Order: sequence, then structure tokens, then C-alpha cells
Amino acid sequence: MEGEEPGDPGSRPVALARLGERGLIERVRRRLGPPPADVLVGIGDDAAAVAWPGGTLLLSTDTLVEDVHFRRTTTTLHELGAKALAVNLSDIAAMGGEPRFALLALALPSTLAVADVDELYGGLLEMAGRHGVALIGGDTSAVPERMVLTLTVVGRVEGTPVRRRGARPGDAVLVTGSLGTAAAGLAVLERGSFEAADDVTAPLVAAHRGPTPRVAEGRVSRLAGATAMIDLSDGLATDLGHIAEESGVGAVVRLSALPIAPATRRAAALLGQAPWAWAVSGGEDYELLLTARPDRAAGLAARVTTETGTPMTVIGEIRPATEGIQFVDDAGRPVRVGPGFEHFRSP
Amino acid sequence: MEGEEPGDPGSRPVALARLGERGLIERVRRRLGPPPADVLVGIGDDAAAVAWPGGTLLLSTDTLVEDVHFRRTTTTLHELGAKALAVNLSDIAAMGGEPRFALLALALPSTLAVADVDELYGGLLEMAGRHGVALIGGDTSAVPERMVLTLTVVGRVEGTPVRRRGARPGDAVLVTGSLGTAAAGLAVLERGSFEAADDVTAPLVAAHRGPTPRVAEGRVSRLAGATAMIDLSDGLATDLGHIAEESGVGAVVRLSALPIAPATRRAAALLGQAPWAWAVSGGEDYELLLTARPDRAAGLAARVTTETGTPMTVIGEIRPATEGIQFVDDAGRPVRVGPGFEHFRSP
Repeated sequence: MEGEEPGDPGSRPVALARLGERGLIERVRRRLGPPPADVLVGIGDDAAAVAWPGGTLLLSTDTLVEDVHFRRTTTTLHELGAKALAVNLSDIAAMGGEPRFALLALALPSTLAVADVDELYGGLLEMAGRHGVALIGGDTSAVPERMVLTLTVVGRVEGTPVRRRGARPGDAVLVTGSLGTAAAGLAVLERGSFEAADDVTAPLVAAHRGPTPRVAEGRVSRLAGATAMIDLSDGLATDLGHIAEESGVGAVVRLSALPIAPATRRAAALLGQAPWAWAVSGGEDYELLLTARPDRAAGLAARVTTETGTPMTVIGEIRPATEGIQFVDDAGRPVRVGPGFEHFRSP
Repeated sequence: MEGEEPGDPGSRPVALARLGERGLIERVRRRLGPPPADVLVGIGDDAAAVAWPGGTLLLSTDTLVEDVHFRRTTTTLHELGAKALAVNLSDIAAMGGEPRFALLALALPSTLAVADVDELYGGLLEMAGRHGVALIGGDTSAVPERMVLTLTVVGRVEGTPVRRRGARPGDAVLVTGSLGTAAAGLAVLERGSFEAADDVTAPLVAAHRGPTPRVAEGRVSRLAGATAMIDLSDGLATDLGHIAEESGVGAVVRLSALPIAPATRRAAALLGQAPWAWAVSGGEDYELLLTARPDRAAGLAARVTTETGTPMTVIGEIRPATEGIQFVDDAGRPVRVGPGFEHFRSP
């Protein structure tokens, strides 16, 4: 069966698990063919972009499934509501856009308490208010087992949205904030009785539960000349892979350059983990990963930090596609890293 | 516990089942308060409408849950894909808008065959092509038990969208096409071994499986002066109730005036049902229900039929709110009818 095209006619049914999420997206994209002229960015980027009179429209949709994307034992519904919106705001941010409106489609067990639903909306509306986003519609339906939330966010961008494609060999690779924080928070939560001072665990757990979409940072990065951009939802290794694939390039990342918060390093030491492993393979940091021409990278980073207060770090460089993606130690030796999260794939 | 406000602090947790879908929407709407100025239509209508340079933007989102909204034993995945899009196109149609773009968020069991997913996209893309809609993005994730599909459609309308509010006493009440067809089709399918000629059952089953969104009819109705409009997803009784509530009016509907297809009448006779019961309480016809000033109703109906080929029928009249909603027989006597479908409510 090796090498067979999944879904070939005549073969036994092939399950989605073999195709994987990227495989499925690629399959749909091939099937759709070239998009209509007014579709500037179609399937396969952070958000879709369509030409609309008076400014390009950005559209992003994301589903959160209970016990797949979140667990009610480790997340309050207030946090969940905020996070469901935040991950979509992050997608709009990754195109350099400004989020404006949100729609929420909720499938809920009818045994859920009304107070729980209120809590969910409370978190969502708090996050919406923080970014000037209005909740304008949605849909509610009953589902037996588990909550399924789908948020759709509409944004706009004046000018050209920043895409995953656009990185060129020689470009600097940059990230906002710090990496591996959410993965460290998840590890702390999963450890349960993990004993460490609150000042170590609290910010990690908060980062896991309540990601901050980098909306202003994305907007400033676009204006300052970012050539490609993506938000870090599946982890640096996977998401840098998306930029590389879409741009037709490779990349080298220096592990020692990765911005890792002191609390993450301390939790890693206590748990006997390598902090860079969280930074490279851990998902859900929702920081922005972007590229810039080498002569503009320092200026871009300085401008983002000045205007938003968020630090930016150069972590590597774009290389030709033939070099693939390499994570290297201080001596320049390649280090083998695990992949990030991909849906459908069996572990 | 009677008369207690659901979710009051201090009371025992109140389940969603007691609040119902409408109650939940009302609760969210109260919580949101008045929408920002650029939100022309917020939560609680068929679609949201926001002011956007170059034409009002319409946004609709709907979730379909396996074994709640559809069963794989009675629907092919091709039909499901088409229907998932059709119900959203119908929401845009109910505002008099033109659908343009769609996003699909799919939560799928990873055991699903790739060929099944292809079939789903096949149906969706066929429906999209028929209405000039481009699929521009989405999201895929794994879910253990059952498929959950959320479609979001973006449309536009030049001028003012038609809302649920806007009906005034004296207005005529009209519908497109015929009513009860989808409910008859469902009854035929559920009967299984039901014996009737294919020319009776085939069009009914087709209507249940593959609703036709009345996009052109909605557009023409808006241009011809519809004062309020909704699509019939939950059944005439429930959806007329939405127009009445939002417009602050009542209505009278003559059962003998309801347009019911000959095949529906024959299936009703064979199954010992009253055909008007399907027409009044059966959901998923996805016809348009609208109101018009009495002196414009005939002209509107004629124009829709001329431009689209779809028949339109006057079925009743808007009355003051104090009269409530009445379904009457030929002698003008009120007939008690069952309610349509509502989510979360126990039967």
C-alpha cells in the first residue's frame, strides 16, 4: 500500500487518519482549482482574503471541540470563550489585518447549565471588547456529547495582506513574545500535583488558558515590511514548515536564539524537560512568526516593540528549499526536533 | 420554581433545555446591548448585516450535527454538503442579498473515509457553483463521535436588507413554492417500507434531502417591496412567530390557502395525515415567508414568478399583536396547530 494515493478509486477505503489535515487541505485546494479573481487568498492560509470595495475583507473560521482542543477540567468556560475568539483574532493578526466582527456557532449539550453558557459569552465578550470586535450573529444547536464551538471573524486590511508565501532566501525569521509558554503551562496542568512556586506556574498556566492574540503586532509588522507571516498555533516546527512550503524555501533556526521565558526554563528544569523542545514543538503560543528582508528586520522589530511593547526576536534565516528546515545548536550542528500538532494523524 | 428567571443567582443550575434556543438568543441579545452603529442587523435575524464601504455585508453561520440535523442512513454525503451550504444561502436570500463566499469548518471522525469527504465537498461545490459562490476557507479538526459541519456565508446587498421586523397590520403574508414537502419526504423516509408510486415519493424525498435556497426570489422580493422576510427552516408556525415577535404584530393564516404540492397531499392521504399539519409545523422547506403592503402584494408575487419561475401565494394577513397568530379554516374558525422545531426543548 506504500506510496498509494489516498482515496484512489478501486482501493480499499482510506481513512482521514492516513491523509492528515494538511493532506486534506491540499486535496481540497487541488479540487477547487484557481480561485475567482476577487479571491486574493483562498484555502490554505491563516485567513481568506477577498477584494471588496473599500478595503480587503479577511475571513477566518476555527472550531474548538471539547476534549480535543480543550478540557473542562483544565479550562473555565470564561477562558474558553475568550480563547475561541482569540485564536481567530490571531489568524486575522497573522495577515496584518484588523478584526471587526465575530459570529459564534455553538453546539451544546442541552444538559449544560445556563450559567455556564453565560460564562462562555462573558469570556468571549471580554476578549471582543479588548480588540474592538462586535459579536453580530451565530447559531445554536443541541449536541449530545460534547461542546463544539465555531467562531468566524471578519476583518479588514487596507493594502495587501501578509501571506505565508513571500519569504525569500536571506530573509530574517522573527517571532513576537516568547515561545513554549503555553506548552509549559499545559505540562504543569497535566502534572496536577506539580509543586513549584506560584510565580513559576501561574504565568505559564495563564498563557495556556488565555492566549493573547498579537493583533497590533501583526498590523505594525505588515506596515514595517513583513514578507511572510503566520501565527504559532501548531508549534514553531510545524508552522515554520507552512511558511517554507508556501514560499518554496527552507530555513535555519538557532535553538539558543529562541525567546524562552524564565518561568518556562524553571518549569522545564523542574520537570526534567528541554525548554527548547516546548518552544519548537509546543503548540498554542499564538505568537507571530514572520520573515523580513535582512536589512529591514532590525527596524521592523524595533518598531513593533516601540508601538506595542511586545519584544521581537530574530531566531534564524530563510534558506533555499534544498536545505530544508534545520534547527541548529550553537556550533551550527543540526538537532533533531519533534513535529508539532497535526489533526487526524495517529500519534 | 414556576416563573423563576432561568439562571438566577442562588437558584439550582438551570439547564439549557429549560431556556430553549429562542430564550438563549434573547438572553445573549440583552447582554450585548445595542450594537455599534455600523452593525445594521445583529443577533436574532436570518443573517447579520454590517455597513461596509461599497455595499452592506451579510453574514450567516449554521451548524449541522450528525444525528441531530441529519442522519447518514437517510442522506448521502453529497446531499449533506449541498444542504449545509443551501441552508446558509437561504439565510442570505431571506435578507434579499446575494451570497458570494463560503467558509467550511469541519469536525470529522478520523475513521471517516477520504472518499466520503470528497463526496461531501462534491455536493457543496456543486451547490456553490449553482449560485456563484466561492469556497474560500475553513478549518478541519478531528472529533470522536459524529460529524459537525459549520458553514459561514458572506453575501452583500445593495441598499437595505429585508429584516424579520417590518411587517405592519394589513400587510399580506406570502410564501414562495409549496409547503410541507420536506416534512412529507421525511415521513416517507422514516416509514421505510412505505409503498407508493415513485412519482409520489421521489420528489418529496428529494425536497427533504436537497433543499433549494430561494436566492433569486429573495433578491426580487426585496426589490419589489417586501416589508419583512424569513426563510422557513423551523416551519411556518415557528417562523411566522419570529416575524410577528420581531415586528410586534399578529397574523391570520388561512389553512386552505397554503400551497401544498399534489404529491404531498397524496402521501398525506396514504399515511393518514393532514397535509396542512406538515405545511404548518414541518421544518426545512427553505421557502421564503414574507410580507408586503396589501396594494403591492399581487405585483410582488407576479414579478417574482415572472423573473424566477417560482410561484408565490398569499396565505394570510398581518394583524395587530393583540390578535396573536391564528390559523383558520374556511369558515374563519381558529384551528389549533402544533409548534415547529426548536432546539434544546424537550419534546
